[in-house]
Amino acid sequence: MYEKSLQERYKSTNIFTLRCEIADKPGKLSSLVAVVADINAQLDKIESVSIDPFNKVRDITIFCQNPHDIKTIIPKINAIEGLRVIDVIDEVLDSHRRGSIETKSRMAIKNLTDLRKVYTPGVALVCEKIVEEPNAAWDLTGICDRVAIVSDGTAVLGLGDIGPSASLPVMEGKAAIFAEFVGISGVPIVLDTKDPSEIINHISLMAHTFGAIQLEDIAAPACFEIEEKLRETLDIPVFHDDQHATATVVLAALINALKQVNKKASESRAVIIGAGAAGYAITKILLEFGLKDIVVYDAGGALYKGRKDMNPYLEKLADITNKDGVTGPLEEGFKGRDIFIGVARANLVNKEMIASMAEDAIVFPLSNPVGEISVEDASAAGAKITADGRTINNALAFPGLFRGALDARAKDITAKMQLAASNTLAELAINGRLLPDMLDTGVHSSVSKAVQAAAID
Amino acid sequence: MYEKSLQERYKSTNIFTLRCEIADKPGKLSSLVAVVADINAQLDKIESVSIDPFNKVRDITIFCQNPHDIKTIIPKINAIEGLRVIDVIDEVLDSHRRGSIETKSRMAIKNLTDLRKVYTPGVALVCEKIVEEPNAAWDLTGICDRVAIVSDGTAVLGLGDIGPSASLPVMEGKAAIFAEFVGISGVPIVLDTKDPSEIINHISLMAHTFGAIQLEDIAAPACFEIEEKLRETLDIPVFHDDQHATATVVLAALINALKQVNKKASESRAVIIGAGAAGYAITKILLEFGLKDIVVYDAGGALYKGRKDMNPYLEKLADITNKDGVTGPLEEGFKGRDIFIGVARANLVNKEMIASMAEDAIVFPLSNPVGEISVEDASAAGAKITADGRTINNALAFPGLFRGALDARAKDITAKMQLAASNTLAELAINGRLLPDMLDTGVHSSVSKAVQAAAID
Repeated sequence: MYEKSLQERYKSTNIFTLRCEIADKPGKLSSLVAVVADINAQLDKIESVSIDPFNKVRDITIFCQNPHDIKTIIPKINAIEGLRVIDVIDEVLDSHRRGSIETKSRMAIKNLTDLRKVYTPGVALVCEKIVEEPNAAWDLTGICDRVAIVSDGTAVLGLGDIGPSASLPVMEGKAAIFAEFVGISGVPIVLDTKDPSEIINHISLMAHTFGAIQLEDIAAPACFEIEEKLRETLDIPVFHDDQHATATVVLAALINALKQVNKKASESRAVIIGAGAAGYAITKILLEFGLKDIVVYDAGGALYKGRKDMNPYLEKLADITNKDGVTGPLEEGFKGRDIFIGVARANLVNKEMIASMAEDAIVFPLSNPVGEISVEDASAAGAKITADGRTINNALAFPGLFRGALDARAKDITAKMQLAASNTLAELAINGRLLPDMLDTGVHSSVSKAVQAAAID
Repeated sequence: MYEKSLQERYKSTNIFTLRCEIADKPGKLSSLVAVVADINAQLDKIESVSIDPFNKVRDITIFCQNPHDIKTIIPKINAIEGLRVIDVIDEVLDSHRRGSIETKSRMAIKNLTDLRKVYTPGVALVCEKIVEEPNAAWDLTGICDRVAIVSDGTAVLGLGDIGPSASLPVMEGKAAIFAEFVGISGVPIVLDTKDPSEIINHISLMAHTFGAIQLEDIAAPACFEIEEKLRETLDIPVFHDDQHATATVVLAALINALKQVNKKASESRAVIIGAGAAGYAITKILLEFGLKDIVVYDAGGALYKGRKDMNPYLEKLADITNKDGVTGPLEEGFKGRDIFIGVARANLVNKEMIASMAEDAIVFPLSNPVGEISVEDASAAGAKITADGRTINNALAFPGLFRGALDARAKDITAKMQLAASNTLAELAINGRLLPDMLDTGVHSSVSKAVQAAAID
């Protein structure tokens, strides 16, 4: 089940284009297609590149089960007379070639007047205007659309601490999403330090450059300290995506799930595995929303008041959760619970645990790329509603949250703004789905409007 | 002379568009045009916005001598029956509205496959590739095209220390030029500190995000310390624009000027006023190029070995200049010199000083927006070749220098690369001009190729 789920998740990203020279003889293309089927790859498309009387050159794009399959297929194709692979393009790597984003000028610079507007001497008038009226910087520079995306590379996707350089493609990807979905200019900044006070200081020094700060892929508990301190001192929103955007989307899905099973939040009992950035924020937003009984597990077992070896953030969580004082193995935490949310790691949960939950259980195993249990296994064990990290994706929330905060010129992204985003996302889901389609740009503009209204309110 | 020169420099940047409702009666448009002429504004263009049987709406774009003229003209127009100003657009401010740059995605995100390539789960493969092979970050992220444009806002244009926020439009303007001329993604970062060690530390921490660092509008002597230290520790180019790009363009103009007056660099004697960022770098590049006799003035008079109150950078300059031990008033420094370069402030130089120079004198009064002497006065006093800050603009050099350095994946921008840029700029000037046209993008690509070749060499 693990294997199947992993393959399914990855298969649409192992995308390769083979540029093949094909002799103009009967049966050659069909033997090529047969080789693709042989290695269990899926044919996406065939395009013509050039045709002459003897040879055709075609681009064959395929989805592989495994990225290494591409190494097997090339000799197999070359072994057939009249077929030759002349180039291989890894479509995923190719889409990140030279980065996925770029800086563009908003105006063309075609003549001297253009240049004198955008640069000297005209720009001096703009500077002087801001000196006179500091508030004008919001209108006369890009800060109203500009968000720093800052990471130390310590908690990147499911990959862990991979450092600043290797985390850069993720920050660029976020910026590409910002640009495409809500017209925000994201600026990736990756830092060569893990020291919270250095990160806090770094961001503070450059804060005038931006309208908001998105913290990204910073490990707990450093992420809590950094966000807390910056929120206190800066007058622009500081928002740790992995915490709050994730929590916003989880809550949206949960609102619809509870409706579908006809349960009330205040009466529903939840178990959460994972007390890192996401687990911490999910717990807090669920309590804010009205849940009253949550037990949270980390690697050391259930959090409870007085447990040893907890950092101050875990102690805070212990204070506001686990009112029944659950302890002991993970199994205990599932018994009779209505909701399970996993933000820890692959395969921590088995069918028996799911089966021990209350009737009409809601199961969200969200760890990436492989969930705490597969949604198939969870359903088989009796869960009524399931969703994993493919459905519950923070990219549904962060574009609209930032756009709304910037448009309201908010000094913070508050719990109220997040609840507005969750409610809007929940309302926009149609046809019995838990969440709307992330590619529908109308979703992001609805979220941003709701967030803006909540901010002004 | 001062006034005229200032107005001329500024007039093409005081650009306003008046949206006017004009009754459809004879003579109305002509009386509007007469009002424009009345305040000594220059009409740029008239465009139609809408036309109905009674009224026309037209956009009238004018250049004013003074930005305040616009306040006089509106009541004058409104006082005429059948004319009404319904909107005024300040074209310079308008071109900076919401900033002059933005971040764009390099690929459209239209379907799930796009999203899974640029973001999760596909992006994880890109991160893993960089973990395996750190060098791949150059190809698989935007660093090969990305330059930080960092300022503390302490020496902005001729405006001085205006702080980080007010300096932001200049950094954005630089980024717009980078984008338009050479496809570089400039990232403005303005810092809320003047402490060189904080600035050094800040840039070091985020260096993995960029392919090069452009220091911008940082006052001397902090700029020297910052650049020196970062060049030592970082393995990407660090380049203080105000020093080296300016020096590169000055040298290019000087190469052609010396040719025109048929003098040799090694035999030409120069006087430079200004020992800040630009003066320091110009002196060094001229010595590198082959000049042997330069005297440099700052506010304390001529630099000479043993003068008191000099910082370590001025002491270095004193060691390599002023071989005749010139002291005393500014007048002394001009006597018999072949070349004058001013990078200090307005109106420091009079006609008598220019008249005391050698025959066929070359005079570059470069302070902005008003030169040390106007080029008209310099010519009248006998200077053979003159050019001011309108002609000698560092935007001629910095795009090609950075593009060339990035394309060569250089670890530094060396004096040799700068000389290559100067020689290329000098060669590209046609029709007896000192420098080529900055808006000719072919110029920037020629400079970048020359710089790249010099880097590889």
